[in-house]
Parts: sequence; C-alpha cells; structure tokens
Amino acid sequence: MEKNGNNRKLRVCVATCNRADYSKLAPIMFGIKTEPAFFELDVVVLGSHLIDDYGNTYRMIEQDDFDINTRLHTIVRGEDEAAMVESVGLALVKLPDVLNRLKPDIMIVHGDRFDALALATSAALMNIRILHIEGGEVSGTIDDSIRHAITKLAHYHVCCTRSAEQHLISMCEDHDRILLAGCPSYDKLLSAKNKDYMSIIRMWLGDDVKCKDYIVALQHPVTTDIKHSIKMFELTLDALISFNKRTLVLFPNIDAGSKEMVRVMRKKGIEHHPNFRAVKHVPFDQFIQLVAHAGCMIGNSSCGVREVGAFGTPVINLGTRQIGRETGENVLHVRDADTQDKILQALHLQFGKQYPCSKIYGDGNAVPRILKFLKSIDLQEPLQKKFCFPPVKENISQDIDHILETLSALAVDLGGTNLRVAIVSMKGEIVKKYTQFNPKTYEERISLILQMCVEAAAEAVKLNCRILGVAQASPQVAA
Amino acid sequence: MEKNGNNRKLRVCVATCNRADYSKLAPIMFGIKTEPAFFELDVVVLGSHLIDDYGNTYRMIEQDDFDINTRLHTIVRGEDEAAMVESVGLALVKLPDVLNRLKPDIMIVHGDRFDALALATSAALMNIRILHIEGGEVSGTIDDSIRHAITKLAHYHVCCTRSAEQHLISMCEDHDRILLAGCPSYDKLLSAKNKDYMSIIRMWLGDDVKCKDYIVALQHPVTTDIKHSIKMFELTLDALISFNKRTLVLFPNIDAGSKEMVRVMRKKGIEHHPNFRAVKHVPFDQFIQLVAHAGCMIGNSSCGVREVGAFGTPVINLGTRQIGRETGENVLHVRDADTQDKILQALHLQFGKQYPCSKIYGDGNAVPRILKFLKSIDLQEPLQKKFCFPPVKENISQDIDHILETLSALAVDLGGTNLRVAIVSMKGEIVKKYTQFNPKTYEERISLILQMCVEAAAEAVKLNCRILGVAQASPQVAA
Amino acid sequence: MEKNGNNRKLRVCVATCNRADYSKLAPIMFGIKTEPAFFELDVVVLGSHLIDDYGNTYRMIEQDDFDINTRLHTIVRGEDEAAMVESVGLALVKLPDVLNRLKPDIMIVHGDRFDALALATSAALMNIRILHIEGGEVSGTIDDSIRHAITKLAHYHVCCTRSAEQHLISMCEDHDRILLAGCPSYDKLLSAKNKDYMSIIRMWLGDDVKCKDYIVALQHPVTTDIKHSIKMFELTLDALISFNKRTLVLFPNIDAGSKEMVRVMRKKGIEHHPNFRAVKHVPFDQFIQLVAHAGCMIGNSSCGVREVGAFGTPVINLGTRQIGRETGENVLHVRDADTQDKILQALHLQFGKQYPCSKIYGDGNAVPRILKFLKSIDLQEPLQKKFCFPPVKENISQDIDHILETLSALAVDLGGTNLRVAIVSMKGEIVKKYTQFNPKTYEERISLILQMCVEAAAEAVKLNCRILGVAQASPQVAA
Amino acid sequence: MEKNGNNRKLRVCVATCNRADYSKLAPIMFGIKTEPAFFELDVVVLGSHLIDDYGNTYRMIEQDDFDINTRLHTIVRGEDEAAMVESVGLALVKLPDVLNRLKPDIMIVHGDRFDALALATSAALMNIRILHIEGGEVSGTIDDSIRHAITKLAHYHVCCTRSAEQHLISMCEDHDRILLAGCPSYDKLLSAKNKDYMSIIRMWLGDDVKCKDYIVALQHPVTTDIKHSIKMFELTLDALISFNKRTLVLFPNIDAGSKEMVRVMRKKGIEHHPNFRAVKHVPFDQFIQLVAHAGCMIGNSSCGVREVGAFGTPVINLGTRQIGRETGENVLHVRDADTQDKILQALHLQFGKQYPCSKIYGDGNAVPRILKFLKSIDLQEPLQKKFCFPPVKENISQDIDHILETLSALAVDLGGTNLRVAIVSMKGEIVKKYTQFNPKTYEERISLILQMCVEAAAEAVKLNCRILGVAQASPQVAA
Repeated sequence: MEKNGNNRKLRVCVATCNRADYSKLAPIMFGIKTEPAFFELDVVVLGSHLIDDYGNTYRMIEQDDFDINTRLHTIVRGEDEAAMVESVGLALVKLPDVLNRLKPDIMIVHGDRFDALALATSAALMNIRILHIEGGEVSGTIDDSIRHAITKLAHYHVCCTRSAEQHLISMCEDHDRILLAGCPSYDKLLSAKNKDYMSIIRMWLGDDVKCKDYIVALQHPVTTDIKHSIKMFELTLDALISFNKRTLVLFPNIDAGSKEMVRVMRKKGIEHHPNFRAVKHVPFDQFIQLVAHAGCMIGNSSCGVREVGAFGTPVINLGTRQIGRETGENVLHVRDADTQDKILQALHLQFGKQYPCSKIYGDGNAVPRILKFLKSIDLQEPLQKKFCFPPVKENISQDIDHILETLSALAVDLGGTNLRVAIVSMKGEIVKKYTQFNPKTYEERISLILQMCVEAAAEAVKLNCRILGVAQASPQVAA
Repeated sequence: MEKNGNNRKLRVCVATCNRADYSKLAPIMFGIKTEPAFFELDVVVLGSHLIDDYGNTYRMIEQDDFDINTRLHTIVRGEDEAAMVESVGLALVKLPDVLNRLKPDIMIVHGDRFDALALATSAALMNIRILHIEGGEVSGTIDDSIRHAITKLAHYHVCCTRSAEQHLISMCEDHDRILLAGCPSYDKLLSAKNKDYMSIIRMWLGDDVKCKDYIVALQHPVTTDIKHSIKMFELTLDALISFNKRTLVLFPNIDAGSKEMVRVMRKKGIEHHPNFRAVKHVPFDQFIQLVAHAGCMIGNSSCGVREVGAFGTPVINLGTRQIGRETGENVLHVRDADTQDKILQALHLQFGKQYPCSKIYGDGNAVPRILKFLKSIDLQEPLQKKFCFPPVKENISQDIDHILETLSALAVDLGGTNLRVAIVSMKGEIVKKYTQFNPKTYEERISLILQMCVEAAAEAVKLNCRILGVAQASPQVAA
Repeated sequence: MEKNGNNRKLRVCVATCNRADYSKLAPIMFGIKTEPAFFELDVVVLGSHLIDDYGNTYRMIEQDDFDINTRLHTIVRGEDEAAMVESVGLALVKLPDVLNRLKPDIMIVHGDRFDALALATSAALMNIRILHIEGGEVSGTIDDSIRHAITKLAHYHVCCTRSAEQHLISMCEDHDRILLAGCPSYDKLLSAKNKDYMSIIRMWLGDDVKCKDYIVALQHPVTTDIKHSIKMFELTLDALISFNKRTLVLFPNIDAGSKEMVRVMRKKGIEHHPNFRAVKHVPFDQFIQLVAHAGCMIGNSSCGVREVGAFGTPVINLGTRQIGRETGENVLHVRDADTQDKILQALHLQFGKQYPCSKIYGDGNAVPRILKFLKSIDLQEPLQKKFCFPPVKENISQDIDHILETLSALAVDLGGTNLRVAIVSMKGEIVKKYTQFNPKTYEERISLILQMCVEAAAEAVKLNCRILGVAQASPQVAA
Repeated sequence: MEKNGNNRKLRVCVATCNRADYSKLAPIMFGIKTEPAFFELDVVVLGSHLIDDYGNTYRMIEQDDFDINTRLHTIVRGEDEAAMVESVGLALVKLPDVLNRLKPDIMIVHGDRFDALALATSAALMNIRILHIEGGEVSGTIDDSIRHAITKLAHYHVCCTRSAEQHLISMCEDHDRILLAGCPSYDKLLSAKNKDYMSIIRMWLGDDVKCKDYIVALQHPVTTDIKHSIKMFELTLDALISFNKRTLVLFPNIDAGSKEMVRVMRKKGIEHHPNFRAVKHVPFDQFIQLVAHAGCMIGNSSCGVREVGAFGTPVINLGTRQIGRETGENVLHVRDADTQDKILQALHLQFGKQYPCSKIYGDGNAVPRILKFLKSIDLQEPLQKKFCFPPVKENISQDIDHILETLSALAVDLGGTNLRVAIVSMKGEIVKKYTQFNPKTYEERISLILQMCVEAAAEAVKLNCRILGVAQASPQVAA
C-alpha cells in the first residue's frame, strides 16, 4: 500500500479549543475518518470546550462520534490579558506530555486564538509537523500578530482565500507548502442549504418568527481595546432593542472582556426581553440555517464576514475586529460604531435584503483537497522549514566540501627538455598545464620555475583552485 | 522636557535569559542608564542566567551594577524538547504577574531562543510594545521559525545587517518600524580592541600560550537533530585533540542535548587534558579579546559567524546551525562535518590566518541609534501592528460612514411650468438636477416624472449616491 | 523599642483567597495595622477574590483600605477536582517569586481550602514561619484532611474552640505554639450587634420584609460527593419554595460542583422568583445583621454552625459537610437530607425561634490575643518544628559529644611501693583508682598490672567510660 | 473470584520520584506483579528519575521490566527552596490529567520528599485512596512536616517501626487503617545477604580493596539550613581525606543545596583523588552489599540509620537530619559536626567494628503483609477519612432524624368516665398515658385537661419526646 511516500499510516493529531475552530476542523476530521487506510486520528480537546460557561462544547465532539484521546484544562481564570497569557503557559506545560504519548506525524491547528499559538509553539519546538488552517488572512487586530506568528511556526498551510494565499507567499512562506483549499466549513455550508430550516428557526427564535424576519447577533470583545468594545456592545444592544425585531444573541468567546459583555447583556435585560433569545451555543449545522435565512446578521464575528456571504444574507460588521477581511458585498461595515443611531441606520439599510452569494471563502471542495494535500506529505523530507526570501547577494565565506573539490597542488616537473608546472586537483585531475623550454643554467631554471609557479598560483584563483603546496610531479601527471 | 512625544519617561523593561542575549542587551542597558531623563529601566532575569550549571550568569548583571527587579526560575529540567516547551509554559505562567507589576511601555527582547518567544508572547498578548533585537536573520534551523514568529509579535525591530532588514521588509513588516542599527555587541567590540589582551589570554589559556596560537571552541546542540549534533561534537573534539593546540572549550547553551554534550566532553577527558581548558562562562569583554587574538575559532555559535568577523579571526563553522547567516570571508563552513579528517583539514586551512575585518554586523554605533529610535516611539500611536502586504483588490463591502456621506433623496417638484427632479444629499446639497416641461395630462405627467426618477436613480449610482427615498421638494431646493 | 525579642518589626504576610477567609483575616489585618511600630503588613490576594463570577471580592480589601501588594490568578477553570489540584499547582508555581520578593517573617494562613494548602506548602518549604488560623476543627469532610495537613506544615496555631485546641494537642502539635483565641470574626460580630439593621435587611430582602421573618440560604458543594450535594441543593430549593418565606440565596463558593449548583438555581427560576433574592456576595458586616435577625439560616456553610450561634438564630445544617463541628443548640442537623419533606419539617421546627446565644467560637477578644501572640514570636528560635509525641524508649545509639565527655584512659603507675591504675577522663579527672602492693618479680608485676587493667576496663563500662588507651601516669595523677 | 470485597481487580498506581523511594517501592511493585488476578499496576515516573544529573534512574525501572505508563518532567531548575515549591506546583499541574486517564483505585506514595507531597495532594483532592509507605517516622527536619502532612492526606498507612505506628496513632489516625509491616526494602536486604559480594565491592571500590576496609559516604543537603550542611560536608570530606581509607562517595539527592555540595566535592578534588570513588547511583542490590561489608558508613542518609543496621555495619550519622530516627546501636551520632577532628575521632571509633544486627526496621516480610493489606481494602467503604480524636463532650445540637423518631402528639380523650391524655409518638406508640376521673362541670373538665396536658408536656421532655400538637384520640389509642 502506497501512503504519502511513507510506508505507514499518517498519524494526525487534531487539537480543538472551542466551538469556532471545531466548526472548521470537524469537516476535516470527518474526512480523515473516512480514509482509515491512510490516516490515524487522535483528537485533543482543550481550552473553552471544557468550560461550562461556554457550553461544554466538547460534547459536540462526542456527539459527532469522535474518540477524544485527551482533555486538558488550559484556561486560567481572570478575564484579562494576563489570564490569557497564563492560559497559553498552562497549555504549554501540559501539551508536551500528550505529544510525547501520541507522537503524531502532523498536528492540525486552526486559526489565530491564543490557544492555537500554544499548540503551534509546542509542536514546532518538539519537531512535529504543523498544518495550519486559515493562515494568511488579515483582520486588523492582535489576532493578526498571533495568526502570522503561527504561520511562521507552521510547516504546511491550508488557506481559504486567494488573498490569504498571496499574503502567505508575501511573508516568504514556501509556495510548495501552501494549499488554497477554501474554508472547510464551506463544504458543509454549501451542501446543507436546502434542508427543512423552518423548524430550526422556530426552535431557536420562537414559533411565530418568519424567514428573513429576524436578526442574529454575535459580538466578541476586542482584546486590544476591551473598554471600547464593551461600549460598542452596549450601543448595539440599544440599537437592536429599538429596531424591535426578534433577535438571537450568542454569548461571546471566552476572551479578556467577555465577562463584562455578559454583564452588559444582563444589565439590559436581554435574557428576559421578549424580542431576544440569549444562548451560549448553537450547533454549527443549525447555526448555518439560522444565518442563511436571517433578515440580517450583526456583530464582529469572523463568521459574519466569512460564512454568511455564502448565502447572501446581509451582515453588519461592527468595529475594527474584521476590518481587514475580504468580504462579499453583503457586508456593511460600521467601523466607528460610536452612536446607537449609526448602528440603527445600518440595520434599516441591511435588514431584509438579499445579496448575491459569494464564493470568496470557498467552493465546497476544501476537505477533499486537504486530504490529498495531507497524503502528499513526505515524512522523509527534512522537518526544517525553508523561508523563501528574495535573493540576497552571495556570502563570501565558503564550505570545506567546496574547497576540497578544488584543493590543488602545483605539480612541478623539472627534468628533460621542458619545465612543466601543472595545477592538479585533489582528485588527480590536471586543471591546467604550463610548459617552457628548460633553460641551460641552474639559476635560469630556478628563476623560470618560480615564475611559472607564481603565474599558475595566480591563475588558480580564477579557476577556483586553492593551491596547497608544490610537489614533484609523478610520472603519470607529468606525462 | 521633550520626551518621545510623550509627557513622561519611557518605562523600558529589558528581559534577559542567558549570557548570549545579555552580551547584546547589556550595551543597550548601559545606554539607557546614561539617559535617566528619558528612560526608566527595569531588568527582568530568567532562564539559564539563574542556573548553576550555566554559570549563574545573573551575577554578571549585578557586577555591571544593574538592579535586577525580578528573577524568575523558568527552566524545567529534562534536557529534551518537551522540557523546552514546558519551560516556555512556565515563563508564560509567571511573566504576566511581573508585567502587571512593572507596567512597562516597551519590552526589549533579543534573538531567537525559546525564552525570547515566551517574552514576546506575553508582552504581545498583554498589549505591551515589543522592541525585538536581531530579527530578520536567517540561520537555517528551528531558530528561524522562532525568530520570525517573534518578528510577527514584535512592534519594533532593530536589525543588525542589511539582509536582515530586507528580510523583515520581505516578510511584510512595517518599514517605518524597522531600524538597521548594527549589532549592539559590535559597539563594545570595536571600541575594546586595543586593551592589554595578553593577561586575559594567559588567564584563560595558561601562561605559556601565545597570541594567535590557540583555539576557541564553542558548540551548541542543534535541537532539531540532537543525535547528529552530538556525533559532530565528538568528531570535533577528536580533531582538536589531534590538532594539538591549546584550546579553550566553552560549555554549550542549556538546550535539549546540552547534557549529552557535556558527557561527551567528560568521556574524552577534555576537562583534564593538558591542552584544553573547559569553562562555563567567560565575561563578554574578555571573550572578545580571546577570539580577537585566537588562531582560530571553531564551533557552531552565532558568535563565530557574527562577532568574530570584526577581528578577521578565522572561523570554522560546523554543521547547519548558522548556515544561512551572512558572514565575512573569515568563515569556513564544514556543513557536513561527518569525519574527523574533514574538520582537521579545516583547522589546518584556517589556523593562524588573518582575514580583513568585516563590518557586515555593525559599525560600532548601534546603541546611539537604538536610543534615538526608542525616543521616537509615540505611545499615542495605536498599539495594533500594521502589516504591509502588497496591494490586493478592493473589498466590495462598504462602510456606513461612507454611505452616510452619499445618502441621498430624489426631490421632486411637480408644480408650475416645469417638472423638476433633483438628487439631494443628506447634507442638503443638490448633486444633480433634471428639468422637463410639465405635460398637460395627468397621465403624461406621472409617466414623465417616473421616467425622470428612474433616470436620476440610475445616474445616482455613478455619482456614488444611494437613493433612499423620494420627497416633494422644499421651495429652496426647487428654486 | 522592644519588639518580639527581635530588634526590628515583624514582617507579616497575610494571604487571602476568598470572601470567607477574608472575613476571618480582616479583623487581624486591621489589628496589625494599628500597631505600625511592631508590624509591617503585606497583603497577597489570590484565588476566587479575583474572579468576576464570585463577585471580584478583592474590592472589599481595597475598600477596607489595605494595600494589595500582589494579585495572583491561581484558579484553573474546569469545575472539577482536577481543576482544583491544578489551581493548587498554579499557586505553587507563582508564590515563590512573591515570597522571595516580600521575604516575610511569618505568613498568616486561614482555614482548610485548597488555596490555603498551597500557601502553607510554599511557606513551609521556603522556611517561612506559618501562623494557621482555625486549625484543629473537625467538619467530617475532605476539608479535614486539608486542614490537618496544613496543621502539620504550620509552626503556630490560632484556634477558635476548646475542642480544636484539644485536637491540635492530640495530633502532637507543640502546646507552646497553640493559642486558643476564639474566632477573629466574632470580635466584629459581637461588637456589631446593635446597629440599625432594618435598612440592611430591606436592602437585601426587599422593603416589605420583617425582622425574623426571612431565611438566609447558603449551600456549598461537597467535593467528595458532588452529585449528592447537588441533589440535596435541589431538594432544599424545593422545600424553600414550598415554605414560602422571603429568602436570600447566596451563590456557592468556587469549588468543584459550584457551576452545577448555579445551574440548578437557574432551572428552578430562583433568580426571578418573587420570594427569592440570589446574590453573589454580601459584605460581612451586613451579612452579620442579616443572619442575626433572620427567622432561620439554612445550608451547609461553616458560617451557619459557627458565627450564627452568637445570635441564637436557628440554623438548619444540611448534609455532612459540617457534621463534626461543635455547635450551639441553635443548630438542627438534617444529615441525611434525602427528601424535600424532611427539610420542610426542619424549616417548620426552626423558623422564627430564638435560642440562647453561644460563645463556643469566641468571646470577642480574639484579635488582641493574636497580636500579643505574634509579638511573642522569637525569630531566633529554630524554624524547625517540634512534634510532641508521647515518649518512646531511648535510642541505643549515641552521640559523639556524649562519648567525648566519657572518653577515658587507664593511667598506670608502675613504680614505688604500689602499683596503681586509674581511670582518667579526657578532662583529667580521676574517675576511679586501683591500688595494689607492688610484687617483687617482674612477671608478677606484669601479671598483676594486666589483671588490674582488665578489672578497670570492665568497671569503666559501668561508669560510662570508654577506655581508649593505657598510658603511664603523670605524677599528679599518680599522686 | 473474591477480590477485596470488590468484584474486580484493584487498580494500583505506584508513583516513584527517585532512586531512594524506588528502593522501597520496587519490592511492592514486584509483589503486585506476581498477583495479576488481584491487581492491575500502573507506574508513573517523575521527579529526579528523569534527570541526567541524577543518573536517569528511570532506567532502573525499565531494567526491572515494569511498563512505565507516564513520565512527567516535574523539576524546575533553580537549586533553591523556591524551585522546590515550583516543582511541587508543576507536578500538581500535570498529575490530574494522568490520574483522570488512569483512574486508579489506590495510589501508593512513599516517604517525605516534596514530590511525595505533590502526589498525595493531587490524589487526596481527586478522591483517590492513598496508601502511604513509611509514615509516622521522625527525623527532626522539615521532612517531618511534609511526612506528617502526607499522613493527614493519606487513607492507609504502612509503617516500618513500632514507634512509627505509635506516632501515627498518637496523631489520631485510624488504627484500623495502619499496617505495621516493616520496611519493604528489608525483604530484599535480608534475603540478599549471602551473595558473592566481593566482585561488587571490587567493581565500585577497586580491585585491591578488602572487606570491612572501606567507607561508604552519602550526605544530603538539609534544606532548612543549607549553608551549615555544606560546611559540614566540607569538614566530612576533610576528615575522610585524613582518615585515608578507600571511600565511595555518592552524589546527594536533588534538593536545594545539592549543586553546592557537588561543587565542594570538585573543589576538594574528590573525583580524582586515588582514595575516592564518586558516583551518582549504585543499584540498590549492589548498594546493599557495599554497606553490608563496609568498615563504616558515614553521612546523613536515612539509609544509614535504617537499612544499614540490618548488617551491624558501623554508621556515623552527621548533623540533625536523622537525629530523631530510631536506630540500632551501630549508629554513632555527630550531631554537632563542627570540627574535622570530631568527625575524625568518630571514624576512628567506628571503623571496622561489627555490631549485632538490628530488626527495628523490618523482619523481611513486609511485602506479603502489604499485599494482604491491599487486598483487604473495601472500595465500598466511604473515602472520607475518620480521624480518631479522644472523646469530646457531646454537641448540644440535634439531628432531624433523631427528632422525627421522638416527635409526638398529646392525644386527648375527653369522653366517658375518664379524661385521658397520652403522649403518642409519630410511629403511633403510646409513650405514656395519664388518666383522671372526668369532672362534672365543663369548667372543671377544661381546667383538668389543661393541667394534664401541661404535666404530659413537661414529662415529654424527659422522655425525649417533642410535643408537636394536641389531637383528639382515635379509639384504638384511647383504648
């Protein structure tokens, strides 16, 4: 059986930290599972998957019938940036034991969250190949720094858009190790479109809600400017209350600031407002149906600017968190969301529209491409990454092997009719010969032979020969 | 007092992990200390500085009369890659408390070691500006991945060579935040050349040793191929024993594999061999004199390919650890150091030569440039990094502010001689007017006015106006 | 100035982890602050004080105007026992840096929570004296193991009840280092009784509530049997709903199981039930008023069995968590709280009663006693703890110093009329003399002198002398 | 198959941290392995086993053919007390994942080192039964605090000496859960005595050494007084150099101070002194032979005061580290080892003697006893520890169940000849009856019945009945 140029199955470790990355990783995991002749799959679960406040989303993985090999608590409580760093630290303290036990050939890591940085750091330092999903994108936040740092640690890249691919190449990643596959979540997205969606909509938004007549809101804290992002969330809720449409509000990701946002929701009475439904988690396939048929999606979730375009649903993107992202025309930005009124106007403009569907983020065939890419990985290739910098001028220093090839001696034949000097390489090849009539007197001979040697030595440099000594020629050389 | 465009001193935190990074950071620290009107300095010491086996090099910092604010144990024992990852984790668990206490404006981080990655990760996630020293270089090892990952997390870059600067720009870092300063250690190097060096040489190598007649050896394990690098170290020691010159051997850095190398030294009896001196640490200013006057330096230390070129001392660089680095012509590579003989030949070729001095890595003025660069940092500027990717095509999506400027209405004046339609912006400006004679019949009027509206609406798109409604014109508009 | 037998102030570090321990530590901290000539106080805050879900209770400490020297995130998320252990680990990784920085003479630690074990472990291993508050008590849960383990690590004990004192002595702690002070919270309790309490009651329970006509409920998970304790909580809420009195429910401590209990509260609709008020935290001085005037307190909080007795308020103690505790007669146990009905009956029995006040846990003078105890600590005394085990028989082995005192020689005087042998100690004392007439013949003399030496050597053992040699007596000895 | 009162094998986890604890645990592990019908064994290796400087002693476990399930790096570098605490922390961060994976019924932990405290803490908090080996002993150092703290966390105790057993009982541990087994290492010790020992002695001490004519030295740092213990080590080495006998010196345990001691050894030239052999590790069975036939053992190792007594080999115990331990008469203490001369004299006194063999620490049958004890553990028994404190007076508070049994009513029968009042329990039993003639007038009747009720109520208290109400008697009661 021919597998990956290797003679055994590829041991793939997929590590997932939260509902968001799982929505991208799950399609790949399902794909890997369908090819047991080629792959062995180990699943590691960490981060907010295991946290009650965030819906214990590890249960989704169990429901999807994957064996979870390892569960690691990696979140340090504290709701600020310090806790985030400490959480990365906790993961790094624990992951090596797991990786030493599983010994994967390759680890698949997704995205740009702090947990992903921990995964990539541990795998890179432990000489385990990393396949990074969704590198090269630009959102305009601290996530960019993390995402690009992961890119630098990763050995293989699966990117979702043509721009992302260009960015990876721009950042000097090796083109041969970049796959433009599209976003894996799009496979499911595009194949899931025609299901009986009304029952799902009713389940999450109430029996009396109509298609295209409700809003989905999902806003995360921006960790580089928590205070501002909480203010923005307040304004958004106010605008949504005024707008007076049935609205599903999802709880934010577990980031610095998230607790504060939950508190804002409570203060505004969102959990008990008749127009609102506040939930921690919606299974991805149901979430797809909800946004596909929403009158509008609002917030700063990457999902809004990425997945939702596939359905042409209008999106209002608030603030700068996704500002750099590629989007379809369905997205209306409110970059500077500083008044309730501005957000309200955006809602009036977007609500209920239908835009053309966009394929920027995928055409529904990402997973087969990724599986093929995985199979093509040659474990015999050096682990060491190459970075493809534009050419810089040659180093002046040399390698001994190169010199050894050109190490030479001057072979001198003093006898007979002619004086002969030859540049002879270490391997015995005569690189160049010099011949002169043998003068009569001893003084003349010495003088001539020295002159010939000097000339040969000078020319040797041009011939890339390094003269190490002078010896009397052996007969075959002299011949 | 004018300070950094800010109205107070810049709080600079320098974190140092080992003797190697301290040799680069110390000159900057001394510089910072000379300008107390501009800077406040906090020194954090971690990593192998605090480890007995590596010479307790934190004492150098005390001897240099810097106050050490914080000392952190961050090394997990284990001598393998797992321990290295866990050490990064330990540092990340501990650093946030320190950074929260010190609240620096900027953290200065050097190089490409795992400890530096921990420092950069913690500062980046905690929204503390990072100045990274020595980014953009290429060595061809796992260090490259770490170095470039730190680059992605860092906000400001001080690089040492023209190539490094080019690489940083190539990787899409913001040119405005890159300073080509040269290597800070070169300042000291180039100003320290004429001291009474013989007493130093005698102290470390014995009373009977002569200038240019001894060797300095410094080899580190290569963490991506530990086994091979230990083999190479064995061959090197054998070659040095055969070569039979007085040799100073420095203990390797504390990396996965270092213990194994120390064991090889013991096995070969290096510590008690009359030709060898084995030491854990040489103060940097003395080390300079030692390599400046050595007959040859051998190993795979970055120092060999970087600093030593300044003196024209011959260097033999073993293996691939520094293979990608820029060097002067004084460096002879033995990339594939697979036989004792090959290393021995390299020693014969290089020992005792004098090469022209090289300024690739610095001209002796790095520190003043760095201080000026630090002063120019504007703390009011957004912390968020910009990455300078080549242009990609425009997004199709829009921002609400842009729309608000162009939001328009069609103002319709139905009365009198003429029918008039105008495109009127939110701000009340008439963007364009249309006028037609008022037909007689009501049906004709309606038909004409609709036609005019359709025409105006179509043209509005070209005029970047978004027609929101139709209203009867107020007199002043109609006028 | 006379201070503690020492010539400087005593550096006291108080570390507090949650609202519960702070209610005991705060009175001591206030006391320490009133004597700046004797004490320096450093406050370290960790654990659930810093967690939003538990009310960010570190703010109480700030409001009490203490400088918080250090704040440490030490809680790992996970809501199970594993997370609790990891939290202890996290604290232990971080505390040494703090202790090395503060270098306290003594650390004050309270209680039996996992955080306290971390504090005691770090201080004990770092040779810092530990004063443990509230040791020796018995609750009948895993807390007992932790509390007694802390006792073994602590150097000084402040206990609250006569039984606790007896238990500490029973466990072989040194009686001299045990202070029976009473519970520090009682000082405040007993002095706070006559304030205007109705405004406090109305603030927390509503305007229409009457004195003695409401319930305070506070139940924590039992970590050794989480499932059962959640079931019990459900039954309790059902009983309280049936009982139909205004009830203040406090959120549980952050322990394994606490999240589950919060969920139960939500499921039962407690947060929105007109009879219930659910709160995270009540300041201790207000809490005192609330329980002092409640119709009944119910739950398994230590507060119920300890503090509340001071007011004679009826308490219903549920389950086994406090079962071993000493209580006043105001406490009715429902050890096996397995039916709603049983709890309901207990409510009917207890609600509205008034019991005599109990002084088991304190007479209101704990803090002055503790301050006096602190001042009496002699830092010159060895840090090493003595454990006071009942006597065991003597070791057979000996100490060299003892032997040296009894090292002896036989001094032999051969000349003159008499033969004399003496056992002479190292110090020159004659322990015993032997005298015989000097026989005539040489053979007889030798025979006799040997016989005398044998006799002396045999007797030396009884005299605890160890004969090392034989020497000719000096005149004065022989005399 | 009847197993432990349970219906399945007992899952035993043995965790070993260093060569010292492995010498005690290995015999038990071998025993467990011989009974696969009763036990499943998981081996966890951590601490200094995995450290190169301490001989990578995990290899002993592999050579003994045990499967190592998990290896954890748990040592933080730093050679001081802070590092020790952080190492405990690191272990606590990592162990829960392992324990959650292995789910042992019982964990076996040995001794009094900081690593053992980490093991016991994690198991206790995770509700895993702990069997502690070697509790109850007294050495007079910080180890005592740790050992007794572990005792408080442990559920079962295997102790080695009668005194240790007494101490455990004194500290209020449950006598039923204490096994006096003797030290497991003695089993091997006493069965290993007659082997061909000379080849072993020659291997470690040289070909020319004779039985009883060499010294074994093993000294550890005392972590509560590192400075002093290093001084003592210096004096010891000086004394040994003067004493001029062939001496085997073992490297100290990895504790705070150990590095300093290794440095002292180097300074004194021990590693190259002809009389000395310095080694990191001797396999336990060979070590037995070495000490069994030594002229003397010197140091402060527990081995000296424990194991060596079995052979009657003279021991010189230095300092206070083992001062409280039970010993045979073979031990000579030099408690205050403050001069070289004193140590030298002790050497002169002890070297070459032969003492009677001692069985204080074991009779060679510990392992069978321990296996039987393990089998007797009933997993159905509550995990919660009981502490056996001397009796304290009864609590005044009551339990509802007790009350329910005694809840009563007064049954009143007003009709016929007699007035009757009965105290009737909840269960329907008549506890006491009162009968009076029925007076004529209504007023008399009411007066009498009230009087009877008052009397009955008063008496009910003495009868432990709690009158809840008054009811008209049903016929059968009245009968």
